This record gives sequence, C-alpha cells and structure tokens, in this order.
Amino acid sequence: MNKESSIARLKEIDQEIVLYQNITALLGWDQETNMPEGAVEGRSEQLALMEGVLHDKITSNEIGDLLDILGADESQPSGDSSLSDQERGLIREHFREYNREKKIPKKLVQEMAVATSKAQPAWVEARGKQDFSLFKPHLERIITLTRDTIEHLGYKEHPYDPLIDQYEPGMTTAEVSRVFTGVKKDIVALLSKISEKMQIDDSFLYKTYDNTLQDEFGRKILKDMGFNFQRGILTESAHPFTTGVGKDDIRITTRYNEPTMSSSLFSTIHEGGHALYEMGAASPELKGTSLGTGISLAVHESQSRFWENIVARSDDFWANYYVSLQSMFPDQLGDVSQDTFIRGINKVEPSMIRVNADEVTYSLHIILRFELETALVNGELEVKDLPDAWNEKMHEMLGITPENNSEGVLQDVHWAAGLIGYFPTYALGNLFSAQFYQTLKQEIPDYRKFISSGKLIHLQKWLHQKIYQKGGIYTAAEVLQQVTGQSLDPSFFSGYLEEKYTRIYEL
Amino acid sequence: MNKESSIARLKEIDQEIVLYQNITALLGWDQETNMPEGAVEGRSEQLALMEGVLHDKITSNEIGDLLDILGADESQPSGDSSLSDQERGLIREHFREYNREKKIPKKLVQEMAVATSKAQPAWVEARGKQDFSLFKPHLERIITLTRDTIEHLGYKEHPYDPLIDQYEPGMTTAEVSRVFTGVKKDIVALLSKISEKMQIDDSFLYKTYDNTLQDEFGRKILKDMGFNFQRGILTESAHPFTTGVGKDDIRITTRYNEPTMSSSLFSTIHEGGHALYEMGAASPELKGTSLGTGISLAVHESQSRFWENIVARSDDFWANYYVSLQSMFPDQLGDVSQDTFIRGINKVEPSMIRVNADEVTYSLHIILRFELETALVNGELEVKDLPDAWNEKMHEMLGITPENNSEGVLQDVHWAAGLIGYFPTYALGNLFSAQFYQTLKQEIPDYRKFISSGKLIHLQKWLHQKIYQKGGIYTAAEVLQQVTGQSLDPSFFSGYLEEKYTRIYEL
Repeated sequence: MNKESSIARLKEIDQEIVLYQNITALLGWDQETNMPEGAVEGRSEQLALMEGVLHDKITSNEIGDLLDILGADESQPSGDSSLSDQERGLIREHFREYNREKKIPKKLVQEMAVATSKAQPAWVEARGKQDFSLFKPHLERIITLTRDTIEHLGYKEHPYDPLIDQYEPGMTTAEVSRVFTGVKKDIVALLSKISEKMQIDDSFLYKTYDNTLQDEFGRKILKDMGFNFQRGILTESAHPFTTGVGKDDIRITTRYNEPTMSSSLFSTIHEGGHALYEMGAASPELKGTSLGTGISLAVHESQSRFWENIVARSDDFWANYYVSLQSMFPDQLGDVSQDTFIRGINKVEPSMIRVNADEVTYSLHIILRFELETALVNGELEVKDLPDAWNEKMHEMLGITPENNSEGVLQDVHWAAGLIGYFPTYALGNLFSAQFYQTLKQEIPDYRKFISSGKLIHLQKWLHQKIYQKGGIYTAAEVLQQVTGQSLDPSFFSGYLEEKYTRIYEL
Repeated sequence: MNKESSIARLKEIDQEIVLYQNITALLGWDQETNMPEGAVEGRSEQLALMEGVLHDKITSNEIGDLLDILGADESQPSGDSSLSDQERGLIREHFREYNREKKIPKKLVQEMAVATSKAQPAWVEARGKQDFSLFKPHLERIITLTRDTIEHLGYKEHPYDPLIDQYEPGMTTAEVSRVFTGVKKDIVALLSKISEKMQIDDSFLYKTYDNTLQDEFGRKILKDMGFNFQRGILTESAHPFTTGVGKDDIRITTRYNEPTMSSSLFSTIHEGGHALYEMGAASPELKGTSLGTGISLAVHESQSRFWENIVARSDDFWANYYVSLQSMFPDQLGDVSQDTFIRGINKVEPSMIRVNADEVTYSLHIILRFELETALVNGELEVKDLPDAWNEKMHEMLGITPENNSEGVLQDVHWAAGLIGYFPTYALGNLFSAQFYQTLKQEIPDYRKFISSGKLIHLQKWLHQKIYQKGGIYTAAEVLQQVTGQSLDPSFFSGYLEEKYTRIYEL
C-alpha cells in the first residue's frame, strides 16, 4: 500500500469509528434523559459492547500498519510532512489513541471498569452519610490502578503527565503548575479585596421561576448565539452536558429550578457554547471524521465559559436582554433594577461546592483538586489523609472549612469514575477564554455594540472562523498561538477578573 | 464441539445480536422522538452500520456450523429433539434468520435499500400532489425487486408465501385467504345491517382536549393495565409505535389531538398492549435473548387490539373510567352520558383511511391490501392498474370510492418502504384477539367484574401466564393451540363483532 491509498483507508476506518462513537454517545445521552430506571443493566451491556468494538477498531493491526506507512512515530506523531494539515491531524489523533490504548493491558482496563462501577454507588452512599471511610477503600483501589496505568503509559517528568495528556493532549504538569501558580496568587488577592466590601444581595434569584418560561428564554438566547436547532436539541437532565450524537446532531441539556434561576440559565448558555464549538467543528470538510469535533477539553471549556461568563454575565449582554427577562418574570424581577440584577448574577462569595462557585472562586476549587491529585499520584499524599488535606487547602485558598466531607472531599463524582487528570481542564478553559477574548476585542472593535444589541452572531462568526472550523486539525497550543499570537498566559484571565470585579464591587 | 458447548456458544452469540438489535431500536426510536431534522443523513449511516453488523452476525459461518451441530435442517428447523423447548425455539429462530438472510444476495438487499430510500420521498410528494404517476416508477421497481427476492427465497405454493412468512412465520397465503374469505363475508353483511340504522353522533370527540390531561389519563390506564414505568416510557411521536430498546426498556409513543381525543387515547392503550407483551416476554429466563420478545406480528397485534378494542371500547371498561374522564373534561363531556360516549367511540362508518377506521371496517381495509398485494406479486395485476383496482375494491367492500389517490392507493407508507406481506398481520391480529378472548372469558368467569372495577391487572396476569411469558419459544400457531385448544378460526372474530354491534346499533 502506498501513502495515498493508506490515507484513504485510514479515513474510511476513521469514519466508521466516528459512527460507533456517535452511537455510543446516543446511548449515553439517552441514559441521562429518557431511559427508564430499570434499564441500567441492559444499557451497561450495550455500552460495554460498543466500547469493546471501539477499542478493537482503534487498536487494530490494520491501523498500526497504516500509521507505519504514513510515517507516524514518537518523533513525528503527525506522520509524513508532505501530507495536508488535515491528514496530519488525523494521523496525529489516531497515533495517539492507538498507542495509548495499546499500552494499557485489557486486564487493567477491565479492573478499572470493575473498580469504578463499585466505587460510584459507594461514593453515593458515602456522600449521603457524610462518611469518607465508606469511599476510602474504593478510592485507594482506583489510585493504585491509576498508578499502574501511568507505569504502562510511561512519562518523562511527572507521573501526572500521562493523566492530563489524556484530556488535554500536549499539556504537562509543569505547565499547569506554572499557570495555576500565577492565577492562584492573583485570585486570592482579588478575593481579599472583595471580602472587605459590602456583600451583594441576590435573593431575587432564589424565587420560583416558571420552567416553561425559563426554557423559552434560554432558547431565545441560544438562537441568538447561533445554535442551529436543525442540527441540535435542548432537553433536560439532572446534570447539564453536551454530546455529539451525529455530525449534524449536537445535544445539550440543562436543568431548571436548582439552585437558582440564574444557574439554570447560565447552564444553558454554557452548554450552548460547547454546542457552537461542536457544530462549527463539524464543518462540511471535517464532519463525520475524528477531526470534526473540539480539539481538547480546555479549548472546549474556553468556549462554554466565554459565552457563559464573559458574554452573558456582562453589562452589555443585559443591556439587551434584561427588559425581556423582566417582562417575562414581573413578579420576580419587577422591582429589581438592571444594575442590581447584574450585580446579583456576579456575586462573589467563597463557598464549598465547586459546581455552584462564582467566576472568581471557581478556579481555586480546581487548583485545589490539581494539587491534591498530583500529590496522590506521586505518593506524597495517601488517600487516608485526603479529607484533612482537602479541608486545609480550602481554608488556605478560600478561607472556609467544610463542615463535613460531603461538602468537602466527597462532593464530586470524578474520582469515583476514575477521572483523574480531568479537573485542570476546567480552569485551563477559563485561562484560554480570557486570552481568546483579548484578541477578539482587538479584532472586533464593535464587540460591545454587538453584544448590547443582541447581535451575538457576530461573535459566533469570529469564533467560528478562528477556532470552531479548525476542529481537531491543530493542537490546542497551535490554535491558541494561531488566534492570539502567543502561548498560554494566565495574566489575561487575572486581568479580566481584576477589571470586571473592580467595577462590580467598586474596589 | 459437542451439542452442549454448541448451544452455549449459540446463546452467547444470540445475546450479542440482541444487544445490537436493542441499539438499532434506540437509533430508530430516537429518530422519531428527539432527533433534530438535519440529522437524517448521519442517522441513516449509523443505522446502515448496525444493520450491516447484524447481517454479518446472523449469517456468520460460526452460526451455520453451530446450527449444523445442533441438528437444524429444513425437516427439523428446531434442531435435535433432545433439547429443551427454549433451546429449540432459539435454534428455530436462528435457523430461519440465517437461511433467509443467506438466501438474499447482498446486492439485492442494497438495491432494495436504494429503491425504498428513493421511493419514500417520492411517495410523500405523490401523496401531497394526489398524483400516483410520481410514485408509480418507484413502486414498479420495488415490486420487481420483491419478485427477485421471492425467487431467491423460493416457495412451494404461492409467491406471496415467503413474504408473509417474513412477518408471520409459518403463515401461508392459502391460510390467510381461507380466514379472510370467511371474515370478509361476515363483516360486509354486518355493515349492511348497520347502514340501515340511524348513525351515531360522536361530534363531542372532536372538541379540543388538553394534551397534558390526556397524557395523565392515558398513564393512569397504562398503569392499571400493568405497564411497568420502571421498565418503560411513554413519549410523543408523529405516528404511535412500540419498540424494545433493552431487556428492561420498552418504549411506546402516542400522539395527541389528531384527529380526535379518542384516537389518541386508544393509540396509547393499543401501544400499551404491545408493551405488556414485550415486558412479559422479557421474562427473567428469556430476557436479553432472541426469545425475550413477541413471537409474531399477528400475536403482537392481537394483544394491542385486545386492550384497545375488546377491553377499552367495552361498556364494562367505561363503567369504571367514565366518571374520571368526565370530571377531567367537564366542558367537553359534561353533558355526554356514559352510554352516548360508548356509542361514540364505537361508531361504525365506512371511511377512506385505514388508520382512522373503526373496529368493524378496519379488517376490510386490510383484506383489500392483501388481495392487491397477492395479485401484484403473482403478476395478475400491474402497478399501473393499481389505483383503479384499489378504488373498485373500496367500492365493492366498503361501498365508497376515494375522490383521489391520496385518500386511496397512496395513503400508506408501507409499500414505499418495501413492506409487502406485512398488512395481513394487522387483521390476523383481530382474529387472534377474539379467539384468545373466547378462552379468557371461560377461564376467568369474573372478567367483566374485573374490567368494570378497573382491576385490569387480572387480565394482564392471565395473558402473561398464557402468552406473554412464553416469548418466542413456541410458534404463533402453537401458542394459539396451547391457549385456545384449536387452530385459527375466524368465526370468533365475526361472532364478537356481531354480538357487540347488534347491541350498539340495536340491530
């Protein structure tokens, strides 16, 4: 086989793999939205079948041979440099997946699947009873298996590297440490200034808001953002998420009524940001391929948070939408001024639960988890000492201490699901979003006018051209460089927070 | 391999096949309920992939070898008689599927797929424009390919035999002719008597009924019937249907508001009947296997129609439910007496559209299609003469003539989808249901008391024991024999109609 026929064959296999991934995504989406309770066992079997097929397809000898012919190796993971960017991107993705899945023995994958399937109900029980000891042996097992996985994957500098690389290809522990160190210092300083000011009253957000009207309002904003309802849907689920069920089928979910109207609305906008990226990445040229999707979790999170925080929590945004929101909910917002509303949705207050955290404190929750995960992985911290370590760090960074482990170390499902190395992408998303925003402001001088007149589509178009339509062709670092002309710099995010909250809190 | 390990291996493969079928069913269900419009192409690719995998699994050499070892051949399709009923049922199903799919060349399957995918939009257009000529070449192509298929499948008596066998295994054209001839004569005679009576006023059914309340009422009845909402869901779709998405995941759909409240309600109950059968067939012993489902379309339809017509259109049923329906819809039904309501939902009137037909005329619509299909298949009728043949038969059987082809020959999607041989199962279902009902009345002397007190669960229990829990172990003919002690006798259905409508219309 020559290079030409090899790349053609790789594309063919790739399209089949994507169809299996779509089907697997539908099984997952359906489980969270429609499936009756009793169907859990059957669905697990269906998912296990699809995941097994996917593993076999991704690690087939045929793919290995094709990657060889195409010149992909550790020194040149994108293969032969004579190929197009798109072809090299495809090779890079398959080379990465092929090697990763080949390196981890099937037995270890199965052991991890067993461990996490036992750990998740144990975590639910432990959280319910505020008793870490019920979860401890399960987490110990998961950490042991994670260390095994690291040994098989190999690493050069830090054992956490192959973990973060799984969710954020190319990112290293050293790089995350560097950017988190800077941003942590800045946020802690900003928080200290905010804490001296009078706290904002946001009690109006906790009133009862009709779900149907919330849904209608959310859809209006999604439409203005450029969400294409011909190619996607919005439904409800317990935890909001976005998933690609097909090349023209991007689904987002939200939830209404908990804990506040604003958290529902911003969930919708957040997931809408993910969806815009997915819809744009499935461009005519890339759709149906492994490259027709977002490049990394951090870049993805940069898009969701850009729309949720930078756009939708801004003065300009509500200059356009507040009148209609107010007229939709006259009992709840009739006597709440636009300014009071904007201050309410931007209230900063250290709190225990990450998912409910505000824009300023959110990243500290992530940095805390990053510090704990790296320590767990390199043996500096034992699972038995984790609750105390958690509480100490909460106190150090946020000045508060959990009253029990359920509002502390037990609050998130990620570790029970074996997701170690995932958390950093959330905060990296904030950093990326602020850096992209800086460039957007320069390249669209009228951006404020567009936002304050509801012409959000102009922002979407810029993002589409700069980020979305590139899909998975270029790495996250390359995209950042292409768009902003420089590598990751946390000062953009710190500067954005500083400027915004100096105004909000009159610091 | 010996018999023991062969049957064990067959069971293993069978479970994987069922998982693929479940996943395929989910793709289909989702397409009708949630999928955004633009996702059609991607979904077709996903479905084609799953269908290809299923074809390969069903016709694998390994299955062929296992069936050999297990002694399955034309003279003994259930294999070695020393095996259990359940094992023999499993062998029979796989032997049938294996041979059928092996006999039809892949090329022909693909040609039919192309033909039907072109025929369906053409049919939509033709129906919209009331212009048969737009659909004619597509139907001609489908009939040609169907004849090819018949040649590959082979037949002994009638070329229509292998078509009907596909949906109703073991049923023959001669047997269908025999039972349809009897029932047709009886229904035409009954219709003639009804036509001399004053027509019933059912205008109250055409008022506007709130969808949420309709949904609530439908769920209450489903619950009383024994529909397990832990193992199934009810949602909306353009055309009501039932599908099994997992061993504990049986989904039904309904639609509200068209054309009448009663047609929505009886759709829900109809699909509920299908669901009870599927839920019961997925008994602990059979669930997750090819036998954990209804044995044939006619037996399936007997269950849906039993609940829809025999139970839910009876006096006894509304003796229990009418008060609550009336109090739910006081504006619509406040001045409609229980008797008037029952007469309204049992109004008999020859009409053009099959799906809206009443219980008496419905089977005539089917017999018409059966007569036309057999004539098309054996060459007695050409596609170009089909519209006239349709209209003549409508006049002959129902005394009415379509004003255009859209309310005539173009009304159903089945032929455009290549479903030839499917229609008879609808009317056979009516015959089966009346025959089962006869036995039920004898074995549950208190059946009327149970129905009139809402204790529908006693009927469900009897059906579960006699029919549902047997799943696909025994053939339809065997189940009928086991339950009623005799073979199919159309006089039960004729007698049931005669008795009921003599009362309703005071004949």
